[in-house]
Amino acid sequence: MDNMIKIVIDTIGGDNGPAFCVKGAVKGLENNRDVKIFLAGHKDEIEDCLSEYEYDKNRIEIIDASEEIGLNEPPVKAVREKKDSSLVKGLSYLKDGKADAFISAGSTGAILAGGQFVVGRAKGVKRTPLAHLLPTSGEPSLLLDCGANVDIKPEVLLQFAEMGSIYMKEVCGVANPRVAVANVGLEEEKGNALVKSAYTMMKKDKNINFVGSIEARAIPYGKADVIVADGFVGNVIIKLYEGLSKMILRELKGAFLANFKSKVGAMLIKSSMKKTIKKFDASDKGGAPLLGLKGLVVKIHGNSKENEVISAIDQCVSFVRNDVSGKIIKGFENEEE
Amino acid sequence: MDNMIKIVIDTIGGDNGPAFCVKGAVKGLENNRDVKIFLAGHKDEIEDCLSEYEYDKNRIEIIDASEEIGLNEPPVKAVREKKDSSLVKGLSYLKDGKADAFISAGSTGAILAGGQFVVGRAKGVKRTPLAHLLPTSGEPSLLLDCGANVDIKPEVLLQFAEMGSIYMKEVCGVANPRVAVANVGLEEEKGNALVKSAYTMMKKDKNINFVGSIEARAIPYGKADVIVADGFVGNVIIKLYEGLSKMILRELKGAFLANFKSKVGAMLIKSSMKKTIKKFDASDKGGAPLLGLKGLVVKIHGNSKENEVISAIDQCVSFVRNDVSGKIIKGFENEEE
Repeated sequence: MDNMIKIVIDTIGGDNGPAFCVKGAVKGLENNRDVKIFLAGHKDEIEDCLSEYEYDKNRIEIIDASEEIGLNEPPVKAVREKKDSSLVKGLSYLKDGKADAFISAGSTGAILAGGQFVVGRAKGVKRTPLAHLLPTSGEPSLLLDCGANVDIKPEVLLQFAEMGSIYMKEVCGVANPRVAVANVGLEEEKGNALVKSAYTMMKKDKNINFVGSIEARAIPYGKADVIVADGFVGNVIIKLYEGLSKMILRELKGAFLANFKSKVGAMLIKSSMKKTIKKFDASDKGGAPLLGLKGLVVKIHGNSKENEVISAIDQCVSFVRNDVSGKIIKGFENEEE
Repeated sequence: MDNMIKIVIDTIGGDNGPAFCVKGAVKGLENNRDVKIFLAGHKDEIEDCLSEYEYDKNRIEIIDASEEIGLNEPPVKAVREKKDSSLVKGLSYLKDGKADAFISAGSTGAILAGGQFVVGRAKGVKRTPLAHLLPTSGEPSLLLDCGANVDIKPEVLLQFAEMGSIYMKEVCGVANPRVAVANVGLEEEKGNALVKSAYTMMKKDKNINFVGSIEARAIPYGKADVIVADGFVGNVIIKLYEGLSKMILRELKGAFLANFKSKVGAMLIKSSMKKTIKKFDASDKGGAPLLGLKGLVVKIHGNSKENEVISAIDQCVSFVRNDVSGKIIKGFENEEE
């Protein structure tokens, strides 16, 4: 049992109730023989959901939690006061070494606060970025920070570049990840004060393969493996990506239903089109890890279904197996905080 | 001739040479009986292009210019030194009251610098934002600043909100334009220091209809008429919009060519789909005006064709006819600089 990868899944906080977490957990166990899962939440509800499945009882355990943290609660206060919430109890397992990873569809603010206060930052890490894989016309690019830290210093952006490189190397198997900074132009003198200063630092950093600036119009073409941005800009990128691709596909669907001819046409292209639509569906990308903590915390979308839970479990497995947290910790232990 | 709206078109600097400017100018004159156009650039080249068309010779005049400002020249230096460039000569017409508007497909940096140094900011205006109409599933939204000013103060963002409102009211006929600030969340405490502080100011400002924050995922749905952002964030939004919509449509096209069945299907949906694609084509939106100057300067895309020139002329006509510059100047004349 000691070689098992132990993952806590928070069953509270997602838009779809605990059932999808339980279903995802059961399926995730089938895919990964060396995983044990802790389901954190209301014991009776979880047991109810579990009763629908056949599963290895040695590999699922319940962490009973009576309190819930709502989406609109002030996150820091909630994390400090609700000691019996699924979030705080689950994260404590990570802190105490009883688990290797934690997955939640709950409030981003609470997950970030819990990561900081319960699990804690690795030594030398200045800020913990939320990292997200973006679909592109090529391989996915890792974007960080997607919203955890705004108003940061250039050396923080540099650390994001280093953490992102470790992640892409170890979890996604990219040999020498190309790192770019999101910018308003390609020339070195372009950018705001933060980006210009970080650019100079990244150019000198031997730990990363810095390829310069990337303009937002080039992001969808997969020109970089790691894209760094402050949390404000990163959040705008990830959310515009989501909103715009959904809207365009919806508009096209509307156009296809315009008349009989186009309806017939739409039927014929359906299967070819599905692949493209799937490419822009972030739900199979395994959620967004919060990098730089002492343990692995993964935020999945609030409206996640079981597929996202399954992908998140798979992502946690490669993350833990390749000791990404350990490598990040090692990379930063000599830095000043 | 005195009631004529006089527009200078810079024929140098676009990717497609002077021909498309000349063609656009001739067509633009046909649409607008009360417009006179000055074509700035190499006289012989312009005359060559003009010789292909029939047009009212009283309404086209050439401003002969021997110098060119290239895309990669340091903009401020180029504007200061190249007094005989089409850009500087054309902008001088604006400054001297010999023209009402100026359109160019040249270097954004040079246009911004020229606007500042040759035409000059209106009294009380702190910074001049580049404004751009974004296609949405509803009516277009005006985004400003799209890249002219990074690292700005909150009161500058407030001025952008006011200028954007005047523009949408006067040029696009929106009665009470909803103004939103691009942000990472909807609650008032969300955002970076700039946005939080500007939020408080905008809430109190009686000159605008402030509706709060807008998350990037909601931008494509047209939830606001005016969206304000600093030039870094605005540039990321406009360029990601452009890149992502192009990439998705390209990927879909690729999917349609995947097999015989989908090729037939694609033929049947072609005409319905064209409308949607056209919606995301920024070229008929008339370019991006630089607001807050003493005259109207409009930047069109470097790879513009005649359609964008025609739309830009139309935009200039409503801008001038509704005295938008005058209204902006009046709105800010009592402000400290």
